[in-house]
Amino acid sequence: EVASEAEVAKEVSDQALPHFKIQKEMSSQEQGMKMSSGKKGEFRYPEPDELVPKEAPAIGVISLPHPIWSREQLDSVVVAHKAPKGFVDWCAYLSVQALRKSFDLTSGYTFGKKNEANWLRRIIFLETVAGVPGMMGAMVRHLKSLRSLKRDNGWIHTLLEEAENERMHLMVALQIKQPGKLFRLGAVVTQGIFVNMFFLAYLASPKFCHRFVGYLEEEAVKTYTTLLDDIASGRIPQWTDRPAPKIAIDYWKLPEGATFYDMFAAIRADEAHHRLVNHTLSSMQSHHYNPFKPGA
Amino acid sequence: EVASEAEVAKEVSDQALPHFKIQKEMSSQEQGMKMSSGKKGEFRYPEPDELVPKEAPAIGVISLPHPIWSREQLDSVVVAHKAPKGFVDWCAYLSVQALRKSFDLTSGYTFGKKNEANWLRRIIFLETVAGVPGMMGAMVRHLKSLRSLKRDNGWIHTLLEEAENERMHLMVALQIKQPGKLFRLGAVVTQGIFVNMFFLAYLASPKFCHRFVGYLEEEAVKTYTTLLDDIASGRIPQWTDRPAPKIAIDYWKLPEGATFYDMFAAIRADEAHHRLVNHTLSSMQSHHYNPFKPGA
Ligand SMILES: [Fe+2]
Ligand SMILES: [Fe+2]
Ligand SMILES: [Fe+2]
Ligand SMILES: [Fe+2]
Repeated sequence: EVASEAEVAKEVSDQALPHFKIQKEMSSQEQGMKMSSGKKGEFRYPEPDELVPKEAPAIGVISLPHPIWSREQLDSVVVAHKAPKGFVDWCAYLSVQALRKSFDLTSGYTFGKKNEANWLRRIIFLETVAGVPGMMGAMVRHLKSLRSLKRDNGWIHTLLEEAENERMHLMVALQIKQPGKLFRLGAVVTQGIFVNMFFLAYLASPKFCHRFVGYLEEEAVKTYTTLLDDIASGRIPQWTDRPAPKIAIDYWKLPEGATFYDMFAAIRADEAHHRLVNHTLSSMQSHHYNPFKPGA
Repeated sequence: EVASEAEVAKEVSDQALPHFKIQKEMSSQEQGMKMSSGKKGEFRYPEPDELVPKEAPAIGVISLPHPIWSREQLDSVVVAHKAPKGFVDWCAYLSVQALRKSFDLTSGYTFGKKNEANWLRRIIFLETVAGVPGMMGAMVRHLKSLRSLKRDNGWIHTLLEEAENERMHLMVALQIKQPGKLFRLGAVVTQGIFVNMFFLAYLASPKFCHRFVGYLEEEAVKTYTTLLDDIASGRIPQWTDRPAPKIAIDYWKLPEGATFYDMFAAIRADEAHHRLVNHTLSSMQSHHYNPFKPGA
């Protein structure tokens, strides 16, 4: 009755539902405890060795739905700005501007030389931060739905899609080069601060937080537009016509032979999408139904 | 060039990608700010009134992938127990037993009379708690992936699926009857305590936390098995042959005419699935690749 180890491993990894199949009838004594009711049984719980695939699938193979951009869409993203209206908007706008200006100055972006190493460090650092807001928003709304016994109104999936999409941006950038120890320390400290501040801010004012992210994404589109200009005009010679990593091609379904330019154009299109999503969510009421469908 | 309001609303709600389409060229002066690079433009950001659907779609229409159980699977779920091995397992097992016994005593489940109101209160209360662990685990792993610059190894989607699935259990139960104010206060207080404890525990030992959830789910399967017995033997006369709510039929793709019995059988199958998932994740190493595919 009990499936062999090989069968179990195959069933689990083939999306079968093994817990219905690898059960056997046992007496209460055998089980060592009295079951409260119903049929008695015990799984033969599979051991990790049987389950864990020998080789992990590529990064991004399992992903939430996300937009796949056409060539035309990739090339028509524009730097854009939503004018702040009212106190909350201005707070969000000025916070982002203050953060950007001080980060640009201290990181050497404003006056320093831009080269491959600088660009890469900047991108990786920003993407470690960019994945935070979506997850925090999703968590707060999920817990709120549970404790208030009310539906979420469809926001959570969009926030989770954004969080995962930003994590993919990070994973793709890490294919190029892994940063050093000092950088890693900086990323950890920054997250420690940002997570806590954003979490508290989201409890206090989701409207502020989504506007804040909307303005952050305006800046992200600017930055990636500058990067695309730099690549196109040969200012980062290492990246001219360089083929995109495989995980980027698979994730965005880029054509074979896609380049770094195409990959960063896809990232920029994602940021433009987050910009629209967050500005829209900020303008909505918390109980309004989210108009964005999965993957769009 | 600018789309009409009706067009914009349609585009957004049809999963179009409106931010590429509703842009217009503007001078820097018009925009009120100098863009850093690239084409200049401004969206006509749609107003919430144009976007938010007049009528919200039904609960659960947008959901993460989740197993759809066959009749045979629904009826073959068994009460089961994984014997604790080692210190962490025993801590998890004894914590769950202590929680269950004291909850059963104080809630009147052990000695009190079971009727519709008692059952419903118990289910709703437990499901407000059940949605917490998956979201906490997903959040911790997501943030860890970002700050450590390492891939997640495919755990997050399974944890999010569990969290959403538990939230659906709650939404389905709330279709039957909405609890009163005192109950709501209890749910809020309980979440406040449980979220913080589980979050800290997950930082300290994911192995403990998944084992803990595995044992919680063993109890959930017992409870729902008792409930199914009570329904089948007519001890909850209001629920005998009562038709399942529409959102339950849609979510689990139950046949038309499905009853409360079928709906709670689907919930029990979900819990049995969480039981296997969490016992398996607990037995794995954090860097092992998650063998569970989306929706399975
Ligand atoms: Fe990003
Ligand atoms: Fe972004
Ligand atoms: Fe549940
Ligand atoms: Fe569960």
